[in-house]
Amino acid sequence: MDLQPVLNRIDADIDAATDRLLDLLRIPSISTDPAFAQDCQNAADWLVKDLTSLGIDATKRDTPGHPMVVGHIDGAGPHVLFYGHYDVQPVDPLELWDSPPFEPAIEDADGVKLIRGRGASDDKGQLMTFVEACRAWKAEHGALPCKITFFFEGEEESGSPSLVPFIKDNAEELKSDIALICDTGLFQSKTPAIITTLRGLLGEELTIKAADKDLHSGMYGGLARNPIAVLSKIIAGLHDENGRVTVPGFYDGVPELTDEIKAQWEALNFDHGAFLGDVDLSEPAGEAGRTPLEKLWSQPTCEPNGILGGYTGDGFKTVLPAQASAKISFRLVGTQDPLKIRENFRAYVQSMLPSDCTVEFTGHGASKASAMSTDHPAFEQARAALSDEWPEAAAFAGCGGSIPIAGHFKTILGTDAMLIGFAKDDDQIHSPNEKYDVESFHKGIRSWARILHAMTKDA
Amino acid sequence: MDLQPVLNRIDADIDAATDRLLDLLRIPSISTDPAFAQDCQNAADWLVKDLTSLGIDATKRDTPGHPMVVGHIDGAGPHVLFYGHYDVQPVDPLELWDSPPFEPAIEDADGVKLIRGRGASDDKGQLMTFVEACRAWKAEHGALPCKITFFFEGEEESGSPSLVPFIKDNAEELKSDIALICDTGLFQSKTPAIITTLRGLLGEELTIKAADKDLHSGMYGGLARNPIAVLSKIIAGLHDENGRVTVPGFYDGVPELTDEIKAQWEALNFDHGAFLGDVDLSEPAGEAGRTPLEKLWSQPTCEPNGILGGYTGDGFKTVLPAQASAKISFRLVGTQDPLKIRENFRAYVQSMLPSDCTVEFTGHGASKASAMSTDHPAFEQARAALSDEWPEAAAFAGCGGSIPIAGHFKTILGTDAMLIGFAKDDDQIHSPNEKYDVESFHKGIRSWARILHAMTKDA
Repeated sequence: MDLQPVLNRIDADIDAATDRLLDLLRIPSISTDPAFAQDCQNAADWLVKDLTSLGIDATKRDTPGHPMVVGHIDGAGPHVLFYGHYDVQPVDPLELWDSPPFEPAIEDADGVKLIRGRGASDDKGQLMTFVEACRAWKAEHGALPCKITFFFEGEEESGSPSLVPFIKDNAEELKSDIALICDTGLFQSKTPAIITTLRGLLGEELTIKAADKDLHSGMYGGLARNPIAVLSKIIAGLHDENGRVTVPGFYDGVPELTDEIKAQWEALNFDHGAFLGDVDLSEPAGEAGRTPLEKLWSQPTCEPNGILGGYTGDGFKTVLPAQASAKISFRLVGTQDPLKIRENFRAYVQSMLPSDCTVEFTGHGASKASAMSTDHPAFEQARAALSDEWPEAAAFAGCGGSIPIAGHFKTILGTDAMLIGFAKDDDQIHSPNEKYDVESFHKGIRSWARILHAMTKDA
Repeated sequence: MDLQPVLNRIDADIDAATDRLLDLLRIPSISTDPAFAQDCQNAADWLVKDLTSLGIDATKRDTPGHPMVVGHIDGAGPHVLFYGHYDVQPVDPLELWDSPPFEPAIEDADGVKLIRGRGASDDKGQLMTFVEACRAWKAEHGALPCKITFFFEGEEESGSPSLVPFIKDNAEELKSDIALICDTGLFQSKTPAIITTLRGLLGEELTIKAADKDLHSGMYGGLARNPIAVLSKIIAGLHDENGRVTVPGFYDGVPELTDEIKAQWEALNFDHGAFLGDVDLSEPAGEAGRTPLEKLWSQPTCEPNGILGGYTGDGFKTVLPAQASAKISFRLVGTQDPLKIRENFRAYVQSMLPSDCTVEFTGHGASKASAMSTDHPAFEQARAALSDEWPEAAAFAGCGGSIPIAGHFKTILGTDAMLIGFAKDDDQIHSPNEKYDVESFHKGIRSWARILHAMTKDA
């Protein structure tokens, strides 16, 4: 089946495709906040309806949390499993959004057309690039170039509690020759990337409790324990003077880069000054003596993501609070063991605790890092197809983010995964004013059309 | 004029006096939150009306902030200036209150009668002990035993921005032989105290800013600066391993106790185990090698009172926040200079700041510590009167709190002040479920009746 007419149809259909995406973006499917559970259901229903309209046998599949969407359609060539997620991050701080996060719109920013709204880039816009590529194939040739299984999740932004059980329970149904995952970005705005390494993620929440009530800092200050001070000391102690994480055994399983990868990454000429400059920073943080790409792709991290204690309203209140809490996440690499690190982190916190304080822990997800084997021919086929679509040749790259699904596909299904996405560094995912360039959306759709063609034309 | 009939009338009138206090407690006069400005006006109006009903020439006096209330009434004997404040602390966390903070009620707790509500103890209940004592004198003898000026403030819980200018502008009107201040507590539930030393207070608010927006901790984590980590390190660095404050020059002007005061305080047999045990703590915090009373009364402190940064809602969000902020207060003693300490604290914070972070400071009040001279005969007269009313003899004591008004009376008016109050350690001032024992209220009224009598019977 010819590729060019499919690409032409994609170009002709881009406005309608964008409107379909805006429909999906209007559904506030925030998975971490129970208040939006019904909206997650609605997003899943929307996807089932859209897939069904393409002749795909699609169903919503219940889980103890938010539902999965699974769809099947036959075709010649290899069997491909495509994954994306329809849930989105919370929107706070809401006051920093220039327009309502769930009233998406097309904006013209100095001649660059943007799709603005929560989920535009992460991950609804990316998910729809693949769906729209399939729509164009179906419309042009009446069929898809290969056998495809669609697999959409609704808990990716909240630790994916139902994912592993679901994949295990439905392993036979989800097995394929190769998995495609669209939840990553371009390496740079003109350079597409196939991600071959991903960091793992461990989330920990802790609450330090001291007195049984808030205390007057004049009456008790100097004698009573201050949980904000205790928590600050615990967080400050998590890194040494060289920026290395101090949790015992933390670096067990962190590999040094091979000279080959070092050379590949140096060849990418990553401009960390521009990368940081885009967000008004200038000084690389993190461990001394590491290159910026190492810090982002091949080194683990420990970052406080939230902290709260005492009086935080207008004015001032001289209070010694009864408790203080923090959310802390760890990005993991190599063979670091998240459960072992959780255990050692909690032991470290206990060791820093005064005898009359207590601590409560809540775990929020624990996934290992993953590294793809690039042996499957689809990797080179996809790299060539991406290089045809974009100005610069596609790169095999690392990713600082955590997309545990790739590891699950490998360990549970035995399927290698190609992580290909079209987001840009300035898409402000997880931040106010998230956006997706219409170029990312349009060339993303064309990229998938090319990749499906490249994977099947010799089959 | 005889004392006993006044005491009898106070006993007979206690229920009506309590009802009057409940009226005042229903006014949510939170001074630190601009949303309650009108309520502060209402509380001032209530007091003017009540004083006027006693034949006192009382007026509400505007300031750039919340109004003052000033009242005058003639009498024989010495001229007394009485001070209290009608504003109250914020009520959060509201969910920890067992009853609405501004719907006060009388509770029976295992046979102990309590007045429950915000301001019951700090300071409306205490302020009214003096007003009710005057009411009883007036009703019984048709006059007060001495010339009295009433001076009520509405900004004590928000740094008293208008206080010093107002005292300076009205110095002639406010001058007296001795000042009485009712904003402190009993030393122990059976032992009244006259406070002769008070700690000063310096409030600082700081906001650390890093990136110009919240960032994805996967995309940026390890390379981008985390303001929560920066702030935690700054707070953790404020104390050394011995619990001493590290701000340069902080201990300049901190005196060691004289052997005489040491002996007096040892004689009080302070039970710090019970004091901490009442709030479910056991281990004295603060500087090593100091006695608990030293830590509370004669040593300075540095305490974080609030901290906020990043995502603090339900679930988890892997964000590197754009900023993090904290409120930090210092309790000062001896001749410590709050403005010098503010300068040195801000320089310390700047010295801890990575080059691509910025910090914004807001000051919230800066008052020196004060120490009373006990030479004025009123001190011994009041101590004897208090000892007559309470089971244990009254003590000259220190106070960890900060009541800058005493220092202002001394420096601006040249008037010594006696700080006498009837609050108990478990009144939960500045905390949820604030209360004032009916015994504190009742015996407090009787105490003032006795003190006015003692100060004037020989005059």
